Amino acid sequence: MLNRAAFAIHSAIHNSRPDVTCAAHSHTIYGRAFCSLGKTLDCITQDACAFYNDHVLYDNFQGVVLAEEEGIAIAKSLGDKKAALLQNHGLLTTGSTIEAAVFWFVSLDKCCHSQLLADAAGKTIKIDHEDAENTHKTVGSSLGGWFSGKPLFDVMERDVKHEGWL
Amino acid sequence: MLNRAAFAIHSAIHNSRPDVTCAAHSHTIYGRAFCSLGKTLDCITQDACAFYNDHVLYDNFQGVVLAEEEGIAIAKSLGDKKAALLQNHGLLTTGSTIEAAVFWFVSLDKCCHSQLLADAAGKTIKIDHEDAENTHKTVGSSLGGWFSGKPLFDVMERDVKHEGWL
Amino acid sequence: MLNRAAFAIHSAIHNSRPDVTCAAHSHTIYGRAFCSLGKTLDCITQDACAFYNDHVLYDNFQGVVLAEEEGIAIAKSLGDKKAALLQNHGLLTTGSTIEAAVFWFVSLDKCCHSQLLADAAGKTIKIDHEDAENTHKTVGSSLGGWFSGKPLFDVMERDVKHEGWL
Amino acid sequence: MLNRAAFAIHSAIHNSRPDVTCAAHSHTIYGRAFCSLGKTLDCITQDACAFYNDHVLYDNFQGVVLAEEEGIAIAKSLGDKKAALLQNHGLLTTGSTIEAAVFWFVSLDKCCHSQLLADAAGKTIKIDHEDAENTHKTVGSSLGGWFSGKPLFDVMERDVKHEGWL
Repeated sequence: MLNRAAFAIHSAIHNSRPDVTCAAHSHTIYGRAFCSLGKTLDCITQDACAFYNDHVLYDNFQGVVLAEEEGIAIAKSLGDKKAALLQNHGLLTTGSTIEAAVFWFVSLDKCCHSQLLADAAGKTIKIDHEDAENTHKTVGSSLGGWFSGKPLFDVMERDVKHEGWL
Repeated sequence: MLNRAAFAIHSAIHNSRPDVTCAAHSHTIYGRAFCSLGKTLDCITQDACAFYNDHVLYDNFQGVVLAEEEGIAIAKSLGDKKAALLQNHGLLTTGSTIEAAVFWFVSLDKCCHSQLLADAAGKTIKIDHEDAENTHKTVGSSLGGWFSGKPLFDVMERDVKHEGWL
Repeated sequence: MLNRAAFAIHSAIHNSRPDVTCAAHSHTIYGRAFCSLGKTLDCITQDACAFYNDHVLYDNFQGVVLAEEEGIAIAKSLGDKKAALLQNHGLLTTGSTIEAAVFWFVSLDKCCHSQLLADAAGKTIKIDHEDAENTHKTVGSSLGGWFSGKPLFDVMERDVKHEGWL
Repeated sequence: MLNRAAFAIHSAIHNSRPDVTCAAHSHTIYGRAFCSLGKTLDCITQDACAFYNDHVLYDNFQGVVLAEEEGIAIAKSLGDKKAALLQNHGLLTTGSTIEAAVFWFVSLDKCCHSQLLADAAGKTIKIDHEDAENTHKTVGSSLGGWFSGKPLFDVMERDVKHEGWL
C-alpha cells in the first residue's frame, strides 16, 4: 500500500522547486490546530522571524481524495517560500538540506504552539517590519537551518547507535 | 476485583454491534476536557473528517453506579457510528480490527486536543460538507484505520521485544 | 538541610487526621495554575466526582516563612475532606493508604489540567448533584483510591527492578 | 561556527555582574509565548515569589543581527535582578552557582507555563505585597536556588553514569 497523498504533495514540490532537497509534512497537534484558524503566523518571536514573509497560507483544502491536483495547487501556492500552513490540514516546510527542512518543521510547529498559548492568554506584541526582516536574514537562512538542524541529527545518530540499530 | 463499569460498556457494544471486534474507552485529559463541553467535534482538520457524521455525543451521564443501564444506553446512542463522546466522562471508539479501534481512539484524542487549543486561541474555519464527506470515505474507512494503526503496534512489538518482555 | 515547610504541613495533617496514612503535596504546573484562580474544582467529569464535596479551597496563603502556623491552618481548613486546593500554592491530597493518597494527587492534577483547557475553550456542563454524589460514593472511596493507585506502584516497582535499582 | 549572539549576551552579563557565575538563556515554548505578551510575571504562586521585584522585562528587541549592542542593552536592563523576560525572544536567568541559574530557568519557565494556562482559563488572584516580599526572601535566595537545583544535577549525573557516558 502506497501513501498516494504524500507522494502527490512531495513530488509536486520537487517538480516545481529544484532548489528543494527535502520537504517535510505532518499533521502535528499544534500545527493542525493553528492551521484551522485560517491565518499566517504572527511575527512575535525571534524564531518566528525565520518565517517572516517566508511562508504562505494555502486555504483551498479539498480533501485527501484529490491528492494529485491538491499537490500541484499546494506547490503553486508555496511559490518560492520555505513553508506553507495548509489550512484544515497541517504544516509543510522545505529546505536545501534535509537538516534545514526538518529544523524548519520542528521550529514552525513550536511557533504555532507558542502563538496558540499566547493568543489564548492575552494580546501579543509584534516585532516591527525592519527588525523582523533583518532577523530573517540571519536566523532564516539555509545555512541557519542546516546549523540548527544538525544537532537533531547528531543526537538521533548517537541514540540509534546506542540502541544497537546501526 | 472486577472493573464492572468497563465490562458493562464493552459488553453492551459487542452485543449490539457484531461488526465491532474491539472498542476502546479511556478518560484521557483532552478527551474528558472536550467531553465536558457538551458538543460534537467540529470538522476543522483532515483528520477530523474521519469522524464527520460518524460520531455521536452521549449526553446522558448518570454516573458509574448504574453501569449496566449506562452501557446499554451508550451502545444505543452509538448506533452504527465509529465513535462516541461520552459527556462528562471520556472517549469511546470502535473498530472492525484492534488496530483501527486503537487508532481511532488516539486520533480522536488528538482531534479533541487540537480543537481545544484552536478554540481557546481564535475562531476556526470549518471544512465544507462535500469535502468533509469525500475525505471521510478515504481517511475514515476501516482499511484506513487499520493501515494507520498498524505502525503503532509494530513499534510496540519492537519495543517490547527490545525490553525483553517477549 | 531540612525542608521545614514540608514538615510543618505534613505533621499538622497527621496530628489532626489519625485516619490519614499519607499526604501528598507538590507544586505541579496544572495544580498551581488552577490554584491561582481562587475557586474549587467544578464537577464536570466522572473523575472529578471523587472530589465532589470532598475538597476545600484554602485561600489564606501567607507565604513559606510562617510554615508552622500555615500548616496548622491548612489542616484546619482541610477538615475531614480528602483534598485541598492551596490558593497561590498547589495541591494537597490525603489517603488511608499510600496508594490512595498518590492516586488522588495524580487524579486531582489531571482534573485541574482538563478544567483549565475546557474553561479556556468554551462553557462546560456540570454533573447534577445526585449523579455527582452517587458517583462520589463509588469512584471516591478509599478502596477506589487504593484500587486505582496500585497499578502506578506495580509499574514503578517493575521499572525500578528493570533498571537494577532494587 | 560560533554562536555569536549567545557569546554577546553571556559575556555582557558576566562583564557587568561579577556576582553571576552562570547565566541561562533559551527560547522555550512557554518562555517565548509569555515573552510575546510584553509584561512581567504576575505574583500568583509561591514559586513566582522567587521572581517578585526580582526580574525585568527587556522590551527593546532589535533582532539577532545587532547581537553585541543587544547583549550590552540586556545586561543594563537586567541590573541587579536575577532574571529577565526578553520580549519577543525568551527567558534569561542568572545565579551565583550553576545549580541556582539552571533552577531559576526551569522555575521561571514553569511560572510562564502556569500563568499562560491560568490567564486563558480565568481571572487570577495575586499574592499581596508583604507576603510576596517575605516569601521572596526564603524561596528566592541564592541558597534556595542552589538547594532546589542540586537534585536536578544529581539525577543528571546518575542518568549519565547509568548510560555509560561517564
